[in-house]
Amino acid sequence: MFIDKKTKLTLPFGIDGEPWISQIPEMAFSLHGELMITPPSADPALVYQMQNKEFSGQQEQIKECHVQLPPRGQQENQQSNQQLLQDYLCQQKENFLGYQLVVNTEYSDLFPVMNTMVNNLGDPFTNGYYTVNSKPAERAVLDFYASVWRANWPSQSTGDPDSYWGYVLSMGSTEGNLYAMLNARDYLSGRRLVVDQNSHHLVKPKRRTNNRNYYQPIAFFSEDTHYSLTKAIHAMSIPSFYEIGSEFYPHECPLGGEWPKQVPSERPSEEEEKLGKIGSGCIDISKLRLLVEFFAKKGHPILIVLNYGTAFKGAYDDIPGVYRALKDIFIKYNLVNREVSFGDNHDDVDVRQGYWFHVDGALGASFMPFINMAMKTGQLNADNCSECSLKFPEFDFSLPYINSIVTSGHKFLGAPTPCGIYMSKHKYLATTSNPSYVGAVDSTLAGSRNGLASLTLWSLLGKTGYEELQNRAIKSLSMALTLHARLASLAEMILARDGLDIWLHRSPFSLCILLRKTNKEITFKYSLCEAQEVVNKGEDRYNRKYIHLYCLWDRQQSALDNLIEDLSQPGAFDVEAESLLYQSV
Amino acid sequence: MFIDKKTKLTLPFGIDGEPWISQIPEMAFSLHGELMITPPSADPALVYQMQNKEFSGQQEQIKECHVQLPPRGQQENQQSNQQLLQDYLCQQKENFLGYQLVVNTEYSDLFPVMNTMVNNLGDPFTNGYYTVNSKPAERAVLDFYASVWRANWPSQSTGDPDSYWGYVLSMGSTEGNLYAMLNARDYLSGRRLVVDQNSHHLVKPKRRTNNRNYYQPIAFFSEDTHYSLTKAIHAMSIPSFYEIGSEFYPHECPLGGEWPKQVPSERPSEEEEKLGKIGSGCIDISKLRLLVEFFAKKGHPILIVLNYGTAFKGAYDDIPGVYRALKDIFIKYNLVNREVSFGDNHDDVDVRQGYWFHVDGALGASFMPFINMAMKTGQLNADNCSECSLKFPEFDFSLPYINSIVTSGHKFLGAPTPCGIYMSKHKYLATTSNPSYVGAVDSTLAGSRNGLASLTLWSLLGKTGYEELQNRAIKSLSMALTLHARLASLAEMILARDGLDIWLHRSPFSLCILLRKTNKEITFKYSLCEAQEVVNKGEDRYNRKYIHLYCLWDRQQSALDNLIEDLSQPGAFDVEAESLLYQSV
Repeated sequence: MFIDKKTKLTLPFGIDGEPWISQIPEMAFSLHGELMITPPSADPALVYQMQNKEFSGQQEQIKECHVQLPPRGQQENQQSNQQLLQDYLCQQKENFLGYQLVVNTEYSDLFPVMNTMVNNLGDPFTNGYYTVNSKPAERAVLDFYASVWRANWPSQSTGDPDSYWGYVLSMGSTEGNLYAMLNARDYLSGRRLVVDQNSHHLVKPKRRTNNRNYYQPIAFFSEDTHYSLTKAIHAMSIPSFYEIGSEFYPHECPLGGEWPKQVPSERPSEEEEKLGKIGSGCIDISKLRLLVEFFAKKGHPILIVLNYGTAFKGAYDDIPGVYRALKDIFIKYNLVNREVSFGDNHDDVDVRQGYWFHVDGALGASFMPFINMAMKTGQLNADNCSECSLKFPEFDFSLPYINSIVTSGHKFLGAPTPCGIYMSKHKYLATTSNPSYVGAVDSTLAGSRNGLASLTLWSLLGKTGYEELQNRAIKSLSMALTLHARLASLAEMILARDGLDIWLHRSPFSLCILLRKTNKEITFKYSLCEAQEVVNKGEDRYNRKYIHLYCLWDRQQSALDNLIEDLSQPGAFDVEAESLLYQSV
Repeated sequence: MFIDKKTKLTLPFGIDGEPWISQIPEMAFSLHGELMITPPSADPALVYQMQNKEFSGQQEQIKECHVQLPPRGQQENQQSNQQLLQDYLCQQKENFLGYQLVVNTEYSDLFPVMNTMVNNLGDPFTNGYYTVNSKPAERAVLDFYASVWRANWPSQSTGDPDSYWGYVLSMGSTEGNLYAMLNARDYLSGRRLVVDQNSHHLVKPKRRTNNRNYYQPIAFFSEDTHYSLTKAIHAMSIPSFYEIGSEFYPHECPLGGEWPKQVPSERPSEEEEKLGKIGSGCIDISKLRLLVEFFAKKGHPILIVLNYGTAFKGAYDDIPGVYRALKDIFIKYNLVNREVSFGDNHDDVDVRQGYWFHVDGALGASFMPFINMAMKTGQLNADNCSECSLKFPEFDFSLPYINSIVTSGHKFLGAPTPCGIYMSKHKYLATTSNPSYVGAVDSTLAGSRNGLASLTLWSLLGKTGYEELQNRAIKSLSMALTLHARLASLAEMILARDGLDIWLHRSPFSLCILLRKTNKEITFKYSLCEAQEVVNKGEDRYNRKYIHLYCLWDRQQSALDNLIEDLSQPGAFDVEAESLLYQSV
């Protein structure tokens, strides 16, 4: 018997507020009268409302009780409740500005596919026994990206180990980051590779290493790196330089002082700091170099994660600059071509790199190639874009030291579900198994993969092509420049009116604009995204609450205009968004 | 310049077979005439066709060149090419029988949502700053399942550590297995838990352990376990008993001989083996007990993965039986309440379990609760179901030793994209971080999560409720029993006609039917799933190629009838599907 006396069976449930217990059909009671399901121990609607006090905007519009699912179903209320949800979603996307996502999508041509379970089970390059798949479309999407990212294509499992391998993700760039960390770990820790690199195959190892660090990669990434990366290296049991540094070399940090948790990002110049400006969000290459050298010297293989568009500032790491700074370290510590041994008796040996460069290009790797083309063809020029004189930040497979790239399909492109593309090369692929009942190698992180995601990307690239994608890229960048200029005027007005600095910030080529934290209503209305940043003023350190917003091609002009209007009202910004963290004596 | 002389720029591309290079717009050439994308190094259509020779059925119907994406897009061909893909998918779902999925789904009420990017960023119980989410619907789906799986609900982050915690998956059960392994590893290896278990909190540890195995969990799972599990424990760096056993205790396997890679499954009786029958697919509890005891004795925490519906045979492990067999081992080796220490100086201590039970219920955990209700209410009885006299295999949170359960949304339920439900309890939750710019804890494996998936499950449960779900469960089981009976007659006919055993097999309560491998045309037509199984005949061992098919409520009667018809034709089965693996002298 699963009902106990503490249970409040009279709790209301569902849209009509009837007691939960009165909505339980006979079939949930056994012939002995036993209730075969658990009743709620408290009113779920109240519990979830309490947990969301901070986000009352949504709570006010979608009442939990409208959405609850009684055991008998929602019956005649289903349609109106569903409409309620859909209306809410449509309302919120009207004014959406906060995140680096396109929310207004158009897939009516694919509606019918929602009535079919399309599953791209296993490796994209083998159709397999599950025939209701969209793998041909997935391959076309991957080839399209391989060409734009300047990889060797088509993907050839035999014959061209330099050709790309990749797949369409079902979870967005987080899945790609997880997969990249897994593949990098296996590669650097000496697991057997899928491509048998005959040309590098030695019969006998020259010498067996005694260095216990030799197969222990260390991860390096900047403090502006997406939180999914921390999760990914924790999940894959890859230690960061901080973990190994603080545990084994507590007083030896080459930057002086305590080991930082991440590689520091570039600090603003002294001049800028005095004005209360924040840094660009790019990784500090000279500090990275010091940290990498420390661990390369100890014999560790090196795993570098670089950002091509950070989540909070939209900053692009200087990837060629990072490689130039590290190249001589890789040579000096024998990380360019090193022997690894594997197999049952460790007597199989090959020669491979001792470092891995992963690029998290969630937004940037889809958006920037078209800006590159526009700059190099003169489509964007000094007359129409103030950033054209800047050097284009390179990131793709034309840089031979890039091992893997990930991008999201639901950010710049505008897919309706989280998805994305992971791409590497056949010669780096390490982790697969071969379940016979799929008919395709289990080379991806997921088993069942979202076939609809491949179809949406395929439809989108088929309908657009380079020209329209470039138009959208230019539109996004121009929107960011224009909005930034409008906000700069607003900032001056507010400084004059209220004496308040709204901390306007935008990094080069970024679609992201940062501002002082706004009030709750504005944050909800435009789905603005909050975050904190530490600011140095001389010796003192302050914590600041910011919001950011992203300009993307689907934004409604009315949303941008309304935002300026709302921000110009008194009380739009949080005057207490800055607090002292540390004061020098 | 990225064109080199080896490049075959005249390779045909796209539906009209024009040379690839002639389809490149001006914008892909820089002002210096440099091609800014990579050309194909071989004809992708030919390469992918070659790689899919084994799966020519699909290749013949979807020509790669129709699907290819030229840089200028597919232009006027897009619509007809898309129709081609959609027609192919519809054709294949007509006769679909092979996998444990519902392929015929009906979501026209949700079509409009495909034009909105719905993203359930981070924890389901906090709405967060990304307001275009379907988290209220996700919570309703989770509560529905919590009640059916007899967990404490609603989910309460404070106040009830026994209440469930979970989320809707974006990748199917593989994501749930990955997450479960990560959570189990962190829990068993002594990471700090999210719920501060005050009641268990000690000021000082009684004694510090010197046993290096104390924080090293060992994974146990049967040979019938889904391949995603092997991938998950590899990814999360959790060793299996085989890995530790064969490396550190090579000659000590308590089962005698070499360490097996997985826990053996139950073998058929001697009588059955003589008749060439195969086992049920359930884990061999007595062997599991011997293996677990070996490692518990060495001080390792124990991670048990059980199947509730194996992928290839649809078998249900006897979960209460497993616990009964292991309980005294857990007590004897102090795994019921053990101290773990954590924190910077390892001076925070709590007391927690030293074992974890994860249930992979991809199909079964959604299907079987409704069979349970039908049996316990007499809806299914001896008159209408030959299996009603069997004991129902229990699996859910009414068993207090279950730590986590995963199920798929695209299997029994019939979601249009891979998705599912992971569920555990607050008191077990170990891995989270708190990125401020999301507004919700990063407690899930993905960051961006598929909001459409939650909406489809919500819509489905709202439209059906227990009654319709039970109808569908009964329909599926009856279909399996009926089809099995028809195939048994067919088997007799074929044995009489051709002297060929078609190896018909079905495990109790399973929706899955196994048969001798069919010919290529039949395998493609019904999307049948191939796999191999080792069979013992006396001392000799044979390898057999099987196919399986699954009876689910969406199957078309015509597909079942056509299958019987096709299978009764001469040449339907592969006469060479069995081969000798090992012969006794």
